[in-house]
Amino acid sequence: MRGVVYHGPGDVRVEPDLPMPTVRGPRDAVVRVTKTAICGTDLHPYRGEIPGFESGTVLGHEFTGTLVEAGSGVSLHVGQRVVASDIVACGRCERCARGEHYQCELVTLFGYSTVVGAALPGGQAEYVRVPYADVVLAAVPDDLTDEEALFAGDILSTGYAAIQATAMLPGQVVAVVGGGPVGLCAAMCAIAAGAARVVVTDLDQERRERANRLGFTASSPAGLSAALARAGAPDGAPAVVEAVGTDAALAAAVRAARPCATIAVVGAHHAPDLPFPAGTAFARELTVRFVVGDPIRYRDQVLALVRADRLDPAALVSHRMPLSAAAEAYHLFDRREAFKVVLDASG
Amino acid sequence: MRGVVYHGPGDVRVEPDLPMPTVRGPRDAVVRVTKTAICGTDLHPYRGEIPGFESGTVLGHEFTGTLVEAGSGVSLHVGQRVVASDIVACGRCERCARGEHYQCELVTLFGYSTVVGAALPGGQAEYVRVPYADVVLAAVPDDLTDEEALFAGDILSTGYAAIQATAMLPGQVVAVVGGGPVGLCAAMCAIAAGAARVVVTDLDQERRERANRLGFTASSPAGLSAALARAGAPDGAPAVVEAVGTDAALAAAVRAARPCATIAVVGAHHAPDLPFPAGTAFARELTVRFVVGDPIRYRDQVLALVRADRLDPAALVSHRMPLSAAAEAYHLFDRREAFKVVLDASG
Amino acid sequence: MRGVVYHGPGDVRVEPDLPMPTVRGPRDAVVRVTKTAICGTDLHPYRGEIPGFESGTVLGHEFTGTLVEAGSGVSLHVGQRVVASDIVACGRCERCARGEHYQCELVTLFGYSTVVGAALPGGQAEYVRVPYADVVLAAVPDDLTDEEALFAGDILSTGYAAIQATAMLPGQVVAVVGGGPVGLCAAMCAIAAGAARVVVTDLDQERRERANRLGFTASSPAGLSAALARAGAPDGAPAVVEAVGTDAALAAAVRAARPCATIAVVGAHHAPDLPFPAGTAFARELTVRFVVGDPIRYRDQVLALVRADRLDPAALVSHRMPLSAAAEAYHLFDRREAFKVVLDASG
Amino acid sequence: MRGVVYHGPGDVRVEPDLPMPTVRGPRDAVVRVTKTAICGTDLHPYRGEIPGFESGTVLGHEFTGTLVEAGSGVSLHVGQRVVASDIVACGRCERCARGEHYQCELVTLFGYSTVVGAALPGGQAEYVRVPYADVVLAAVPDDLTDEEALFAGDILSTGYAAIQATAMLPGQVVAVVGGGPVGLCAAMCAIAAGAARVVVTDLDQERRERANRLGFTASSPAGLSAALARAGAPDGAPAVVEAVGTDAALAAAVRAARPCATIAVVGAHHAPDLPFPAGTAFARELTVRFVVGDPIRYRDQVLALVRADRLDPAALVSHRMPLSAAAEAYHLFDRREAFKVVLDASG
Repeated sequence: MRGVVYHGPGDVRVEPDLPMPTVRGPRDAVVRVTKTAICGTDLHPYRGEIPGFESGTVLGHEFTGTLVEAGSGVSLHVGQRVVASDIVACGRCERCARGEHYQCELVTLFGYSTVVGAALPGGQAEYVRVPYADVVLAAVPDDLTDEEALFAGDILSTGYAAIQATAMLPGQVVAVVGGGPVGLCAAMCAIAAGAARVVVTDLDQERRERANRLGFTASSPAGLSAALARAGAPDGAPAVVEAVGTDAALAAAVRAARPCATIAVVGAHHAPDLPFPAGTAFARELTVRFVVGDPIRYRDQVLALVRADRLDPAALVSHRMPLSAAAEAYHLFDRREAFKVVLDASG
Repeated sequence: MRGVVYHGPGDVRVEPDLPMPTVRGPRDAVVRVTKTAICGTDLHPYRGEIPGFESGTVLGHEFTGTLVEAGSGVSLHVGQRVVASDIVACGRCERCARGEHYQCELVTLFGYSTVVGAALPGGQAEYVRVPYADVVLAAVPDDLTDEEALFAGDILSTGYAAIQATAMLPGQVVAVVGGGPVGLCAAMCAIAAGAARVVVTDLDQERRERANRLGFTASSPAGLSAALARAGAPDGAPAVVEAVGTDAALAAAVRAARPCATIAVVGAHHAPDLPFPAGTAFARELTVRFVVGDPIRYRDQVLALVRADRLDPAALVSHRMPLSAAAEAYHLFDRREAFKVVLDASG
Repeated sequence: MRGVVYHGPGDVRVEPDLPMPTVRGPRDAVVRVTKTAICGTDLHPYRGEIPGFESGTVLGHEFTGTLVEAGSGVSLHVGQRVVASDIVACGRCERCARGEHYQCELVTLFGYSTVVGAALPGGQAEYVRVPYADVVLAAVPDDLTDEEALFAGDILSTGYAAIQATAMLPGQVVAVVGGGPVGLCAAMCAIAAGAARVVVTDLDQERRERANRLGFTASSPAGLSAALARAGAPDGAPAVVEAVGTDAALAAAVRAARPCATIAVVGAHHAPDLPFPAGTAFARELTVRFVVGDPIRYRDQVLALVRADRLDPAALVSHRMPLSAAAEAYHLFDRREAFKVVLDASG
Repeated sequence: MRGVVYHGPGDVRVEPDLPMPTVRGPRDAVVRVTKTAICGTDLHPYRGEIPGFESGTVLGHEFTGTLVEAGSGVSLHVGQRVVASDIVACGRCERCARGEHYQCELVTLFGYSTVVGAALPGGQAEYVRVPYADVVLAAVPDDLTDEEALFAGDILSTGYAAIQATAMLPGQVVAVVGGGPVGLCAAMCAIAAGAARVVVTDLDQERRERANRLGFTASSPAGLSAALARAGAPDGAPAVVEAVGTDAALAAAVRAARPCATIAVVGAHHAPDLPFPAGTAFARELTVRFVVGDPIRYRDQVLALVRADRLDPAALVSHRMPLSAAAEAYHLFDRREAFKVVLDASG
């Protein structure tokens, strides 16, 4: 089968003869992939930011498809259209029982080498093996296309988790730092959850224009306070999402926050000693919640919102390309010439 | 000045020569009323259901207007357009400090005789005195008309409080028992808060048709379970609002509830021994929250949602009439020939 | 093996030749019982209150013991001392994933005929088969005796669940209606959770005396308001537990409740039309939460509190008897001559 | 009157002829101080860490006493024994209405120059003027001495706020970083709220010994993980309090935290760029809540816990000295030769 294989920074290739995955245990399933997307997380190895990332890894953790083989412990039937969670969790351990799927002792991420748990070939391929499939896969509702369901497995659920973490009330103003795909997912989820206005801040003018087109209020980081004031939050926003993962973004989130606000941080952080404005956070009594996202927990609600036309995944997709063009897709995405790419695994 | 005066069951009259209210203390204000509405609560005395309700009472607790006189402790300035909370609370006592305004030791309701606290002439009049005006009144935002702000002082805030009490998640299905004005306000607030679908049940076909026109899924009480299943909640709804106040309505709410659901009861209950399906409530581990509503707490968010076109007060109004036609308005409302009447105090 | 068998109202017998249970599937285990208790719930069939309760049922859902056989899916090893949850839940379905174990589609109760789910022989026996043992059983910590761990499988966890449901704050006054074993467990858990004072009300003077001896403030139902006032809650208690299951008890709970209080109802209710003071509940904006209890969710914390000497199970035990004396034990318990009986399965 | 006056780093003097405070407005009161304590916060100016701190400031924000004069808007009567909140808030503004007293637009701290809001002479004096006395003062219960009530106005309420912010469950293990007065208050409150074990970590061996004597489990920072494992939390603590205010302390708190734990930071932070282990916080999905403390909100519960012997303020006091010895008291406290000093204002 074909799949997108990592060969080093800047070098991904579609290889034609990868081994077909098979079911290895009762909770395994094999999915024939229909649609798969490239996530910002995939750019970290592509950009060489993860030194030990293993060459030969089949990439990708966002995918939908059709179940073609299932172990005895999987209740979904062969032929069912499914969307996978990016997070692979056992669903059985103490942490899973608490709903902390990313903290599962067996957690891993499809196609991400050994960065998060054990290596597992990814979903930018024609076929993919899914462990703990009874937990990791969900049925795609009949009235949704595979592409419409795709982001429920990662970025839309992450946006939803971020908004839940802020504990915002309907009618409040929400600030989102970062106008990339996850930031816009959070902004969409904020509107779905009743935000009166969402102010999205980004350094990139194109991203601000996209945010404006989607109905949000875009601002540059320098203009954030003024934009919040115009949106009805002169004191700052009670709910803030940081969807970038840098010290500058987190500092902007702190500046955007009203006293006693909650900041949900879904931007991936790796620093052991990030400079943080603790003085302001203390004086304003802020709450900072680091949130990885959890499709297993939230995808049902996300899919229901997509079905009810309350979330619009299509608004995120800038490019639809065949799997065979994956190398070009990574290139475009890396240079921000593509906002979000969906690959068609049949092409 | 003119005002709507209660003279006994079925007998309300617009009287021309009521005494002009005046500021009596530093926290008082006088409001020249522009718009005022008749609430379902007003029908209880009209229908003779409250024996001791005092003849001579100026009725009405839903009104907007313009501040014409203010005590020294009121920061709103004369000339400001304002909307009043139906609940009058001191904002200073221990209960108010906990945000429990309806439980304030000095609580009362405009125009409701001595049923809830001390008597206080109501707002279905040209002028009204507002005690604790620094707490009871809120400014109407510049971009809203008085009518658009009107329901933030009562039924929209009550609907909002009901939805908050259910702790629903965006993407869930919400059931509302009762398609009257408060029920539809709750349904609107549910959509604003992210409900994927709202099922409204009512015995009255016209009310069901109105609910359908507003985008909700209407059902008869007998068809409620089937309607919930079709809406995506075959197990019942995780969040239910009871907006009627009878044993039948509460029983329907229990039937509509998913295991471990929360039922918010905003229908006014008075019975000392209402028959309640405790067995089902226990077996399903339900939570029942009795909620009076609290405009003081929630009106800012409600007004923000109206400004953002997320709540549409106009959809509730079936009749706009001059204050001089109040007797006819009560008559129509009582016979359910009017769904919600707004009176223009200048007419 | 020997076990306590129901033969009809008032008639339980220790039978000597019951079939030995065996492991039937990978998630089954067999436990050699050491200690087992009689629960108030067991009195319902004993008193003939459950007409269809099947003769021949091995009774009992409170037990500890030692694992003697385990299926391949059970991680606890043979020889491990264990305490069982009274509730048997699969731990895998959507409801279990939400932590709603009593609402599991496969839920049942040991030794309770078909009243709650499928029939399953109980734990008042020398051996018992435990389905879903990986979920239902927990290890007994080394520093606890079997008897000390016993109530974590039912009544102590139920008391804990009740207190959690009230959302009480440390330093508040808690009212408990009903001074039986579950009521006292709730009272103990309230103290463990920081209640400044716990007022326990019961009609039975002996139960009040027991409550006083344990450090709670006992009162008759008539004296409840006065007792609350003396305890520092003249307005009523912000957190109330109803641990009886009658209309009178629920009405007492409503009377004991402060405005905006939460009442956790752990008394088992079965009525389709219980008379309920809805008027007072509405006027005071009360929350009523029906709570069955959930040892699977709470037993870890309960066991930790027992280990830390913060909960004292021994204070509940009035009688320790051999299993062979079960008929007498039921008789004593039914007539309230025993407060709580622990049976030794080896005797 | 006499009072403790700041004259520069290391230089505080008891001055004999300070002007007597008087009531200036209807919400003012004057309190004759009985007991007053030195807070760690007072050491910041003493150590010269706050450059602009004004010479001539009467110090102190922890005090109890007797009301000797009250404006017309103060309901407490002259002669009433009272304890003051360290935080002075108006109780009327939007932020106060949300219970965010430290964020009040008029907030200040007694005796703290203009560091937090406007300057206000402090309570280490014979008399002190209390603005917004209806909000800032609380009556001391009859059965408590002034000293027993003293810490409800600051550090015990801060400890309580920290524990509330962690949302710990009874039976869990709590970690406290910092064994000073606020840390031990948090530890006491954790036990009161049901912590099975509290592990207190501090670099200072004397502080560890004090923590052990009070029944907590003390550890050095290096031994924290091992101590948590022995206490029953090998995964880390679900609830952590950081009561120091340095990067090292916050990093230790992150290390002590279980996945998905909450860290309440009550240590005062001032840095604009504190090094923070964001990578670990993200990978473990931690929540960090900055909490200043709020006696106005929590003192009732704190006083109730003191009355019920659930909190023991006396355990914190190492030195009781006359006000006249304040200079020596500061000296001892600064060098950690005193753990907590209570000054008697009559001496």
